[in-house]
Amino acid sequence: MGFERRGDFGAEIPVYVDGEKVYDLRGLTDDLTGLFWEEDGVARTRAAVAAGELPELEGAAEMRVGAPIAAPTKILCIGLNYSDHAAESGMAIPAEPVLFMKDPSTIVGPSDDILIPRKSTKTDWEVELGVVIGTTARYLESEDDVDDVIAGYVLSHDVSEREFQLERGGQWDKGKSCETFNPLGPTVVPGDELGDPQNLGLRLWVDDVLRQDGTTANMIFSIRHIIWYLSQFMVLRPGDLINTGTPAGVALGIEGQPYLRSGSIVRLEIDGLGSMQQRTVDA
Amino acid sequence: MGFERRGDFGAEIPVYVDGEKVYDLRGLTDDLTGLFWEEDGVARTRAAVAAGELPELEGAAEMRVGAPIAAPTKILCIGLNYSDHAAESGMAIPAEPVLFMKDPSTIVGPSDDILIPRKSTKTDWEVELGVVIGTTARYLESEDDVDDVIAGYVLSHDVSEREFQLERGGQWDKGKSCETFNPLGPTVVPGDELGDPQNLGLRLWVDDVLRQDGTTANMIFSIRHIIWYLSQFMVLRPGDLINTGTPAGVALGIEGQPYLRSGSIVRLEIDGLGSMQQRTVDA
Repeated sequence: MGFERRGDFGAEIPVYVDGEKVYDLRGLTDDLTGLFWEEDGVARTRAAVAAGELPELEGAAEMRVGAPIAAPTKILCIGLNYSDHAAESGMAIPAEPVLFMKDPSTIVGPSDDILIPRKSTKTDWEVELGVVIGTTARYLESEDDVDDVIAGYVLSHDVSEREFQLERGGQWDKGKSCETFNPLGPTVVPGDELGDPQNLGLRLWVDDVLRQDGTTANMIFSIRHIIWYLSQFMVLRPGDLINTGTPAGVALGIEGQPYLRSGSIVRLEIDGLGSMQQRTVDA
Repeated sequence: MGFERRGDFGAEIPVYVDGEKVYDLRGLTDDLTGLFWEEDGVARTRAAVAAGELPELEGAAEMRVGAPIAAPTKILCIGLNYSDHAAESGMAIPAEPVLFMKDPSTIVGPSDDILIPRKSTKTDWEVELGVVIGTTARYLESEDDVDDVIAGYVLSHDVSEREFQLERGGQWDKGKSCETFNPLGPTVVPGDELGDPQNLGLRLWVDDVLRQDGTTANMIFSIRHIIWYLSQFMVLRPGDLINTGTPAGVALGIEGQPYLRSGSIVRLEIDGLGSMQQRTVDA
């Protein structure tokens, strides 16, 4: 059960999916924006479902599945948050969370194509657990305050161009913000429905070859620590997306570095958050 | 002459300032968003002024001056784009533009307070020429295409926390996105009114001591090159802000490193773009 968006790109309809039923949320909100999460959208949705007040969305099954959040204020990404990925990248285990950012307009739906950038030779994959922020947070006092700040969890693909990221001038952002580089979805699952977010399997296949097979139990910095930590440096806003890092198995770390080429199929899944699949095409 | 926003934070009114006159733009647009620039807002405003169709905003002179753009999709920043600043930072002259990002929600008005982050000891100043993007741009063919992509220019303060940026885990974004760290304004001046953007003096004073005194003639990478370059890596969206780098004279590079403390007054100006002044207070 969780929150999704259905329909054409840029005109998605917010819905709540409960088993086979897809409820139309437009009576409650225009879109799954920060304001929706901040104004108790999860509780209001559940109450409306329980009261039988939400209509089902006709034709939902045939519609495109969009990203389950409207464009956030920012996407914050944690680098090197799994020790096996740090090792395969030839980098040290970080002493504190490594932060980089991603253009929010890179977000696309879970089944949309990934564009291989022009002149790219090193487009790489990264399956990640995404966290959607539910309320404004600054200077959180302790990790115990973090759960109240989270709207939900989502499957996120932090697509990365390694040459742009690592060989073109020093900061990583340049290789993280290419068009379509953040497929997201299908579903934002509220924290109280997901169970323990630090015990989820994450898997990614390229052309049916299993490339990443990790667990969020192996994060170096826990979700609670990351969000507490980030709130010491900046204001977290409702709707912001935090990508919490990727386990080992990216092309950068594999013998022969089998980067994505046009025509590849990438499939990703995280326990409890569903699966997604993208095709790669040339930009 | 140019575009401003007046009124309380979060409820600013878009205006066009022409000498002593402040025209209310609400008949043309809800706000100075990307859509306004994209849909020929500059030309439509000029036509409406010429036709006598815009009312003046009553009480404008007494209102707070806000940042002259609504929150953009992203803020892109160019690092080390003046050779004297690269030298004072102890860093090499970059071979190609260095990109980092800043949380768009850091934008505040030109006279709003700057918050010194808790536990900060190295909050620093940076006067910069900001460029506001006017239309969607991807893979621009040449630098000759850039002028058509620019909505206007604006005075920007890229406030930076050097410990967070340089000593806390490797990527710069962590020291660039603290709350209130991007004072902006007062005015977006369209390119055809500004004259040559590569021949503008930039100056910054702290407590009346002149600390930065540079010229955009000394940029390592020109504005045209920067925007052409960025469009090879990501999609530039209407309303996006690009901070084009700072000349020498930041606290990091001064003997004794006189970083900002609560109670400082920072004043900035760029030829043709006006001036702004902020007070620093503890977060």
